[in-house]
Amino acid sequence: MTHNTDTPVTILGLGLMGQALAGAFLKAGHPVTVWNRTASKADRLVAEGAQPAPTVGDALKAGALTIVCLTDYQAVHDVLDTGVNLDGTTLVNLTSGDSAQARDTARWAWQRGARYLDGAIMAIPSAIGTAEAVILHSGPKPDFDAHAATLGALGTVTYLGEDPGLASLYDVAGLTMMWSVLNAWLQGTALLRAAGIDAATFAPFAAQIATGVAGWLPGYAEQIDNGSFPAEVSALETDVRAMKHMVQENETAGINAELPKLIKAMADRAIAAGHGKEQYPVLIEEFTKP
Amino acid sequence: MTHNTDTPVTILGLGLMGQALAGAFLKAGHPVTVWNRTASKADRLVAEGAQPAPTVGDALKAGALTIVCLTDYQAVHDVLDTGVNLDGTTLVNLTSGDSAQARDTARWAWQRGARYLDGAIMAIPSAIGTAEAVILHSGPKPDFDAHAATLGALGTVTYLGEDPGLASLYDVAGLTMMWSVLNAWLQGTALLRAAGIDAATFAPFAAQIATGVAGWLPGYAEQIDNGSFPAEVSALETDVRAMKHMVQENETAGINAELPKLIKAMADRAIAAGHGKEQYPVLIEEFTKP
Ligand SMILES: NC(=O)c1ccc[n+]([C@@H]2O[C@H](COP(=O)([O-])OP(=O)(O)OC[C@H]3O[C@@H](n4cnc5c(N)ncnc54)[C@H](OP(=O)(O)O)[C@@H]3O)[C@@H](O)[C@H]2O)c1
Ligand SMILES: NC(=O)c1ccc[n+]([C@@H]2O[C@H](COP(=O)([O-])OP(=O)(O)OC[C@H]3O[C@@H](n4cnc5c(N)ncnc54)[C@H](OP(=O)(O)O)[C@@H]3O)[C@@H](O)[C@H]2O)c1
Repeated sequence: MTHNTDTPVTILGLGLMGQALAGAFLKAGHPVTVWNRTASKADRLVAEGAQPAPTVGDALKAGALTIVCLTDYQAVHDVLDTGVNLDGTTLVNLTSGDSAQARDTARWAWQRGARYLDGAIMAIPSAIGTAEAVILHSGPKPDFDAHAATLGALGTVTYLGEDPGLASLYDVAGLTMMWSVLNAWLQGTALLRAAGIDAATFAPFAAQIATGVAGWLPGYAEQIDNGSFPAEVSALETDVRAMKHMVQENETAGINAELPKLIKAMADRAIAAGHGKEQYPVLIEEFTKP
Repeated sequence: MTHNTDTPVTILGLGLMGQALAGAFLKAGHPVTVWNRTASKADRLVAEGAQPAPTVGDALKAGALTIVCLTDYQAVHDVLDTGVNLDGTTLVNLTSGDSAQARDTARWAWQRGARYLDGAIMAIPSAIGTAEAVILHSGPKPDFDAHAATLGALGTVTYLGEDPGLASLYDVAGLTMMWSVLNAWLQGTALLRAAGIDAATFAPFAAQIATGVAGWLPGYAEQIDNGSFPAEVSALETDVRAMKHMVQENETAGINAELPKLIKAMADRAIAAGHGKEQYPVLIEEFTKP
């Protein structure tokens, strides 16, 4: 698909993120129409060539693709559930929210004749327009395909599937990974600082382990999808012996040991459920229980 | 340093790991002397060219470098604290244990005239002899330097510092990272499976996030070493809003939410301690508290 920079784009919401989105489309050469509740936030973008719309209705009329980026889904409904004509518009809602809100808003939009994609921005405003900005999309595939090239002006654009809730779910799953890597690193940093090692010395080692383990995930995923967990590398009961040790070492150092304890507790439960001779991904059962 | 394959090596302990270690030294061309409590475990290695020693004392006399790899530190003392002459020997103890055991055993060995390095093997037996096998060493630098080239036959050999406890501490810290990446991946996998996405589809996304975040650690480590946490990318109070959301999304999916809750609890405490406007690595304070 060629990127046709003549395609007009409308942006609703010019907070920190909305301004970055509008700026990236302008930079890519698109005609950009903007609207914000507080109109003055459009000033800089208008100076750079954006068209200010006096009302949401006018903004929607400017083109077939509308990006929505407001505080939350309540704000989205405040702005769009006002009798404006959505017929034939494609809404790409990049407002953060949960998967239920995304699915509800998709149904609501479809009932009003709009096309709807839900998205999640895994980036900060300054990264928008670079490949580093990962933006997740979910909803009807043809609607994504129709606008994928244009959306590409924002960063690395990914399509996840038809369920409009997927972008939020992947976003949350990605954040869980982000904070888990950071917390494991902080735990190790605290342990080694107690032995006089500075954070900078430990960081490359921690990064190397995280990257190495990341490489195992596709293979481990096969075990989950096949529902079979042969202990090819290590059995859970062997792992738990090292976990006991991990908890003790952190406790002896006099630092917080909640994360090591949670790691051990999950594995202990899987062993209690009879999985001691199986491999680590068998813990998916424990993670799937309420 | 050139790798002199004439250097004799002694291995005490021929369990799964000890046999792999002896095999790698044989393959690299070293004269290898072996001893094991249950003598028959030496048979395969002897067929491959290893020299069996009838007693621990004989094994120690065969050369200046002795690798010890037994079940635990109790076994190490059972084998070595028997009046055998350790004078002038360099013991490289690759038995798993905690940092206190490593430090105690180093002192014990030094008092008996031995040189002593403590190590930790971050690999399975089948990886020994390949670059994938990371083996950590700590203790007096000159003793490591004297044997680094020989030890290199085992895999990727790393020196961590003079404190003999460091190998155990890095080992534990690395394991914490390993299980944290796996648990975050399992959490996300459970969440997405509840929405009909299979593990194989999610794994590359999870791997990409883990690898990306690993790249931030050296920069974040600088904040810790400088004790200053400016919110260059995101403030903790912004993160916590997304964490609330992460907890809810997992709870709504009806899956285990302990890991997301622990992530949020740590950040909540840092905010309660007045760090809401600072950046994530400020959590080092919470991780450092008992
Ligand atoms: N900033 C980031 O780093 C980042 C990263 C990823 C995702 N996001 C997500 O992007 C979205 C926007 O974030 P932001 O940083 O741009 O936030 P922001 O700077 O606080 O801007 C919020 C925007 O929402 C508008 N708004 C709020 N309530 C409204 C209402 N009831 N009616 C009409 N307009 C309303 C505001 O209009 P006024 O100007 O009139 O107040 C403003 O345009 C959020 O969902 C956020 O989670 C942000
Ligand atoms: N296997 C792995 O994947 C792996 C990975 C990393 C680290 N490690 C560490 O490597 C070390 C050895 O592991 P392994 O897998 O080789 O274990 P293993 O197969 O169970 O072998 C244990 C060894 O210790 C000896 N031993 C135990 N108690 C003894 C005693 N009181 N006196 C004399 N000898 C005694 C055994 O002798 P007998 O043959 O006479 O019983 C055997 O040689 C452990 O600390 C383990 O944590 C192993």
